Amino acid sequence: MHDKKPRKTYIRPLDFKNGCVDMTHGSGGRASAQLIDELFGNAFDNDYLRQRNDQAAFDIVGRRMVMTTDAHVISPLFFSGGDIGSLSVHGTINDIAMAGAQPLYLAASFILEEGFPLADLRRIVESMAQAARNAGVLIVTGDTKVVEQGKGDGVFITTTGIGVVPPNIDIRGDRAEAGDTIIVSGTIGDHGVSVMALREELSFDTTLQSDTAALHTLVATMINAVSDIHCLRDPTRGGLGTTLNELAQQSGCGMVIDEDRLPIKPEVNAACEFLGLDPLYVANEGKLVAICAEKDAQKLLTAMRHHPLGQDAAIIGEVIADKHCFVQMKTSFGGNRVVDWLTGEQLPRIC
Amino acid sequence: MHDKKPRKTYIRPLDFKNGCVDMTHGSGGRASAQLIDELFGNAFDNDYLRQRNDQAAFDIVGRRMVMTTDAHVISPLFFSGGDIGSLSVHGTINDIAMAGAQPLYLAASFILEEGFPLADLRRIVESMAQAARNAGVLIVTGDTKVVEQGKGDGVFITTTGIGVVPPNIDIRGDRAEAGDTIIVSGTIGDHGVSVMALREELSFDTTLQSDTAALHTLVATMINAVSDIHCLRDPTRGGLGTTLNELAQQSGCGMVIDEDRLPIKPEVNAACEFLGLDPLYVANEGKLVAICAEKDAQKLLTAMRHHPLGQDAAIIGEVIADKHCFVQMKTSFGGNRVVDWLTGEQLPRIC
Repeated sequence: MHDKKPRKTYIRPLDFKNGCVDMTHGSGGRASAQLIDELFGNAFDNDYLRQRNDQAAFDIVGRRMVMTTDAHVISPLFFSGGDIGSLSVHGTINDIAMAGAQPLYLAASFILEEGFPLADLRRIVESMAQAARNAGVLIVTGDTKVVEQGKGDGVFITTTGIGVVPPNIDIRGDRAEAGDTIIVSGTIGDHGVSVMALREELSFDTTLQSDTAALHTLVATMINAVSDIHCLRDPTRGGLGTTLNELAQQSGCGMVIDEDRLPIKPEVNAACEFLGLDPLYVANEGKLVAICAEKDAQKLLTAMRHHPLGQDAAIIGEVIADKHCFVQMKTSFGGNRVVDWLTGEQLPRIC
Repeated sequence: MHDKKPRKTYIRPLDFKNGCVDMTHGSGGRASAQLIDELFGNAFDNDYLRQRNDQAAFDIVGRRMVMTTDAHVISPLFFSGGDIGSLSVHGTINDIAMAGAQPLYLAASFILEEGFPLADLRRIVESMAQAARNAGVLIVTGDTKVVEQGKGDGVFITTTGIGVVPPNIDIRGDRAEAGDTIIVSGTIGDHGVSVMALREELSFDTTLQSDTAALHTLVATMINAVSDIHCLRDPTRGGLGTTLNELAQQSGCGMVIDEDRLPIKPEVNAACEFLGLDPLYVANEGKLVAICAEKDAQKLLTAMRHHPLGQDAAIIGEVIADKHCFVQMKTSFGGNRVVDWLTGEQLPRIC
């Protein structure tokens, strides 16, 4: 379907003889990518997986459709601005929307731990239902399994969704070109920092909340303004830094972003400093990165800023030719730093 | 879309104030049905869920499609005749096939426990890949999360699938009518008994294996012979007894089956006696129940017996008018017993 892009090579291949799964394999960063490349990608190898997008696109009776799935294991289950229920609906809708598609139907699968309070389960399920209603999407099928106490952690939810791509829309991770403009839809790091603050029992002066939100109406607005958006992706696990590296790698180009242009809330910056986190690698659940031709950028930005979920949208950099696919950042101090893939795991179980 | 059938009423409603999830909620029997009715069904309420089939059916650009999802938490992960990998592919393909649909694409989501050996993970993933290849189905998208040791149990896999229903096929759980014939595609209880035997470290003289298999080619053969099959369902969790109760409830009719006609392997009968299990409630992973008009039954049976996965197919009973929706069984001793829904949990984590 598409040319096979050269895969990333890793310093040490996975040790399938004596190695074990560790938390970094769930980080969304370099170790996750390696597990996907060397295990899942090899075993399941097909054109759809090889696209390495967050959703698979295929044609059904002449209509382009997408399918995406996400397991949600966030801890704690309830956090400021949302819970695992709303998150599991938003996360899947967003992966559909990042192909420019209109989400249609969701399937929800629950793995419950014996002893989990039914009151909490009801709260989560009602939050899911509300999130789906707000987004105009139906949860049409599901499954429930129960595991013994100590074999799960309250509730895990896997949400899978399908959607339909409007005609003439072709948004993929491999379409970034030198000269393109990089836009982010709003402030970064809100979700990860608010969850980490809760875990660390920090209290802030301000009421920082997760940004968890369904982005499909923002995307519809964007497509309406500029039909030829090249790439869209939501920087969840691994944060903006990892997402930009994924897109650079898929498209075979480099990127330069400008630190001064990154929209970051002062309280997120402060918390990151306190917690020793880099906001570039902190998860977002209601933000997207868009890449388009420079000529379309201003029009796209204006449209985004007119949508409630894109008010703080900003142009943050540009795509450049670079066969090493490096992502670089001009720092506030006038320097230059490489923004690498997330290595290790700074925020376990953030989504 | 369909008339709303009266829901089952339970003696005691769920206690959403002080109650907790227990293992019976994952049994596939009465407690599972209650959780779905009183929690998920109420919260997500829509025409698709209300159909209470194992898959949702909807139209996309004039073509009927189905979507289904299943979490797999079987323990142990490897068993005689299969493993969680092949099972997770077969289970989802079968739920698609039970609507008469042709499976197209699968999404796979993994929740891994920190410390799980990569060698075992590779074995599982390769088994999944092999099962998908054998079935001619592609795994097109996926997700991987990792949880800390003691917060999971090795590997959980949620597989979601979509398929396309051929024109003029309308197989649903609510289409059984008085006078219809009930057919089962082969011996029952093989999967559950072989897994339980492993757990209990029993060894049998014979090599009893799980029947895990993808049934879509059997279904295609069946549709080819008789296009107007009324109901199809695979009796997994909860076994044949629970599946017949579900279909009776959905269709608003009763059923009478004949114990002497139930295909059961002697070693399964022996093991059930030893383990204190009733084969009617033991899970199957490669069998289906078909209900069709009496006039079509012989033709359907013949077609099934010509397929490798239907060699032991048998007519086991008939649908009768009964407003109480009871399932009854004529016993080998000439008596009559009610085959109720599975209550409690006889086989935890069997799929």
